Amino acid sequence: MAKDKKLVESITSMEDDFAQWYTDVVKKAELMDYSSIKGCMIFKPAGYAIWENIQQELDRRFKETGVQNVYMPMFISEGLLNKEKEHVEGFAPEVAWVTHGGLNQLQERLCVRPTSETLFCDFYKNDIQSYRDLPKVYNQWCSVVRWEKETRPFLRSREFLWQEGHTAHATEQEAQERTEQMLNVYADFCEEVLAIPVIRGQKTEKEKFAGAKATYTIEALMHDGKALQSGTSHNFGDGFAKAFGIQFTDKNNQLQYVHQTSWGLSTRLIGAIIMVHGDNSGLVLPPQIAPVQVMIVPIQQQKEGVLEKANELYEALKGTLRVKVDDSEKSPGWKFAEQEMRGIPVRVEIGPKDIEKGQCVVVRRDTREKYQISFDELQQRLQELLDTIQSDMYQRAKDHRDSHISDAHNYEEFQEAIAQKPGFVRGMWCEEQACEEKIKEETTATSRCMPFQQEQISDVCVCCGKPAKKLVFWGKAY
Amino acid sequence: MAKDKKLVESITSMEDDFAQWYTDVVKKAELMDYSSIKGCMIFKPAGYAIWENIQQELDRRFKETGVQNVYMPMFISEGLLNKEKEHVEGFAPEVAWVTHGGLNQLQERLCVRPTSETLFCDFYKNDIQSYRDLPKVYNQWCSVVRWEKETRPFLRSREFLWQEGHTAHATEQEAQERTEQMLNVYADFCEEVLAIPVIRGQKTEKEKFAGAKATYTIEALMHDGKALQSGTSHNFGDGFAKAFGIQFTDKNNQLQYVHQTSWGLSTRLIGAIIMVHGDNSGLVLPPQIAPVQVMIVPIQQQKEGVLEKANELYEALKGTLRVKVDDSEKSPGWKFAEQEMRGIPVRVEIGPKDIEKGQCVVVRRDTREKYQISFDELQQRLQELLDTIQSDMYQRAKDHRDSHISDAHNYEEFQEAIAQKPGFVRGMWCEEQACEEKIKEETTATSRCMPFQQEQISDVCVCCGKPAKKLVFWGKAY
Repeated sequence: MAKDKKLVESITSMEDDFAQWYTDVVKKAELMDYSSIKGCMIFKPAGYAIWENIQQELDRRFKETGVQNVYMPMFISEGLLNKEKEHVEGFAPEVAWVTHGGLNQLQERLCVRPTSETLFCDFYKNDIQSYRDLPKVYNQWCSVVRWEKETRPFLRSREFLWQEGHTAHATEQEAQERTEQMLNVYADFCEEVLAIPVIRGQKTEKEKFAGAKATYTIEALMHDGKALQSGTSHNFGDGFAKAFGIQFTDKNNQLQYVHQTSWGLSTRLIGAIIMVHGDNSGLVLPPQIAPVQVMIVPIQQQKEGVLEKANELYEALKGTLRVKVDDSEKSPGWKFAEQEMRGIPVRVEIGPKDIEKGQCVVVRRDTREKYQISFDELQQRLQELLDTIQSDMYQRAKDHRDSHISDAHNYEEFQEAIAQKPGFVRGMWCEEQACEEKIKEETTATSRCMPFQQEQISDVCVCCGKPAKKLVFWGKAY
Repeated sequence: MAKDKKLVESITSMEDDFAQWYTDVVKKAELMDYSSIKGCMIFKPAGYAIWENIQQELDRRFKETGVQNVYMPMFISEGLLNKEKEHVEGFAPEVAWVTHGGLNQLQERLCVRPTSETLFCDFYKNDIQSYRDLPKVYNQWCSVVRWEKETRPFLRSREFLWQEGHTAHATEQEAQERTEQMLNVYADFCEEVLAIPVIRGQKTEKEKFAGAKATYTIEALMHDGKALQSGTSHNFGDGFAKAFGIQFTDKNNQLQYVHQTSWGLSTRLIGAIIMVHGDNSGLVLPPQIAPVQVMIVPIQQQKEGVLEKANELYEALKGTLRVKVDDSEKSPGWKFAEQEMRGIPVRVEIGPKDIEKGQCVVVRRDTREKYQISFDELQQRLQELLDTIQSDMYQRAKDHRDSHISDAHNYEEFQEAIAQKPGFVRGMWCEEQACEEKIKEETTATSRCMPFQQEQISDVCVCCGKPAKKLVFWGKAY
C-alpha cells in the first residue's frame, strides 16, 4: 500500500498550488514530457492518444460540412510572410528562421509556419480562376512553431499540433456563414465530446487575429477560475485577397476578390480537459474522448480462473467499448491508483469472490461510486454508465462555470470581482480600446469575448461610465 | 467532345516520355502542386485523401502489433544530431538549419528533423530504467525535411510526410524480430491494399541506413522497369544505445544496453501507385485505397427523374462503398474523362433509358469493361467487382514485375540485361563493395536487395567472377 499512496501523494493538491497540480498531473498521467529542445514538448502515448481521438471526431465533423484535407509546406519565405502587413506584424517577432539548407546559406530565409494563411493565399492565387472553383474549404492537420518565451505543457509551447482550416468564397455572406459555422462545430464538439461548456462570442478589435476583419472564439472556464481560449474562427473579408491578388471571374464575367476565413483548434484543448475535469487523484477523462474507457483489474489474479474471467469479459466488451485488462504484476491498489491518475472513466474489479457470485465491482472515476453488476448485465450497464458519466461531467463543469460568473455594474464592483471571485465577470463596455487597456493594466483581466447572446445588464461602461455598447465577458486567462 | 479529348490529350503518353507522363498525371489528377517554396510540394485534396487512407489502414495494422503513437519535437539540436557518428555523417549534409528564434540568434542551431532516431534516443535515455519499461514500440506520423537538390512530386521533395517507428528492446533477438515483423507489415500492406507486389530482402552494407547494423527493404517495380524502394526497417543493435547511454536494469539487476529498431514508409508510395497502375488516361487506383471507389454519372441529368435516381443509388450504396455523384454542369464525356484521370475504380452511368430498363451501365476503370447491371443487384455486384479489380490489378502488376526479372550469370549478360531489359536483374555477388561500385559506375544500376528467398543461380559473382555468396536483385532505381 505504501506504493499506492506514493502515486497519489506525488501530485500536489490543486487547492495548494493549481499550477503545480497541473504540471504534476501532466507528468504522472504520462501525457507529456519535456524534451531537451527548449520549449518543445514530447507527446507520450497517453497524451497523443487523446489527440488522436480529438482529431478523428473533429475531422469527421469537418468532413460532414464539406471540408477537404490538404497539406501545405512547413516553410514560408520571408517575402511571402511580408505580404499582408498586419499579419506579418503579428507573427514576425515570434517565428523560427531557417537560414541554411545543408552546407549552403539560403538566398532568402524561410520561417517555419506559425500559421499558414500566407501559404494558402499563395496557392489560391493560382488555383482559383472562376466562380466554378469556389468555394475552397480546405483544412490541414499539422504542427506550427511560435518562439514563445514562457511555455507550459499543452497550453503554450514553441511547437504545437493543431488543425488550421482556410477557406475562400465568392461572397462576403458565405465567408461569414462559414466563419460562424466552424465556430459552432468547435463549440458543439467541446460540449458534446469533451464535456466542456463554452461561451461563444466575438473578440474585440484589440484581441482579434492579426489580419482578420473579425475573430470569433469559444471560451472555457478552468477549475481555478481562469479562462482558456479554446478555438477561434476568423473572417478575413477580402483583405488577404487584395494583398495576394486572389481574384475570380464571376458569372457575369467580372473580376472579383474572394472572401476568406480561417479557423484553428489545437492540443491546448488537452490542457482544458485536464483543468476542467481533473481532481486531486489525477486526470478525469470524459468517456467519449478517453482512449481507454474501461480498465478491468483482476484481484488475486494468481488464483485459478481470475485472469481467464477477466479476459473473457474483455473479449465480450471490446467490440463496443474501448477496454483493457491490467494483468501486470503490480498490486491491485497500485493499479487502482494508476487507473485513477490516468483518468480512465470506469474500473471493473474482478476477484475470486466476485466470480463465485457471478458479478463484478464497477467503480466510476469521476464520483468514485461503486456498483455490483452481474456479468449478464455488464455490457449494457457499462454503456449506460459511460453515458451517465459523460453527461454528469458536462453538467458539473457547467454548474462550476455558471457559479463562477459574476456581474459588475461599475468599476468598483468589477475590480472586486476580478480580485475576489475567480471566474468570468460580465460587464458592459463602451467599445473604446482605452478601457480594455486600463482594465488589463489594473486588474490583469482581458476581454474574453462579446457573447453572441447579448444582454444589457447596465447602461454604462463598467470602466469609464460612458454609454455602454456591448456586454463583454472579462477574465484572467491562460 | 472537344473538351473531353482535351483532358486526355493533355497528358503525354507513357511510351513517349514516362517521366513527363508521370508529372502530367500528378498535375491533371490534381494530386499535388508545386509551391513557391523551392522543392516543397502542396498535397491537394485528391492526393492527401490517398495518404489519409494509407495512414488509416497502416496505423490499424501497426496497432494490432502493439505500436503506440507519440509525437517528438520537429527540431534537433546540433549537439544531439552529432552524437552518433555514422548517423550524422549520413544526414548533416542535407538538413535545414534554424539559426534564429524571433529576433534573436540561437545559442545552438537546430536542424529540422530529417529523421528522429536522435530525438527518440534522447527520450529513451531518461524514460527507460528497468526491464519493466521494455519494450518501447513507438511510432509517429509527421513530416521530415531533407535538403534535396533534385525533386520530383511524391518521389523526392525537401519536405515529405511519413511515419517513423522507433523501438527499444531488452534483447538482440527481440529487436531483430521486430525489424522483420514491421518489414512484413509493410510488404503485406503494399500487396494487399495497394496491389503492388514487392521483393522483401536485406540491403547491402553500402546501401544500408546511416547508423544501422542491418537494413531491410521492400522493392517494387514501376511500369518503366525502374525499382522503387518502398519501405525500410532497420536493426540498430546497441549502437545508438551506446552512443546515447540508453541502459536498463535487467531481472538480475545488471545494467544492459537496449537494442533498437526504426522503420519508415512515406508519401513516396503514392508515386508507386501512380507508376505501377497508371495508364495513358491517367491514374488507376486500387479500390482498397481509392478515396472514391464508385462515381455515379447521370446522363441527361436535366431530364426528370435522372438526378433523383442517381441520388437514390448513392443513398443505397454509401453505407458500404465510398461513392459520389457527379452532378456538376459538365458534359457526361468530360465527367467520364475526369473520373478516368482521377483513377476512380468504377463508373456507374445512369440515364433515362437505363432507368426505364431498371438498370445502369457499370464501367471498370482498369480494363474499361462494361456491364449492364440491374438496380436490384447493383450493390452486391459492385462489391464483387471492386474485389475483382483489386485482385486483377495485383495480378497484372505481378505479371509485369515477374516478366521484367532477368537472370545474369556473368558480367556480359549483366550489362546487356541492364541496358536492354528494363527491370530487375538477378545476379550473384561476392559481397565485395568494389563490385557494387563498379556496377553502379558502369551501368548506373544499384543493388536493390539481397532477397530473403535466396537461390544459387550461379557459383560466381556476376561482376568479378570470384566465388558468389549472395543472390542480389539489381536495378536502376528512383
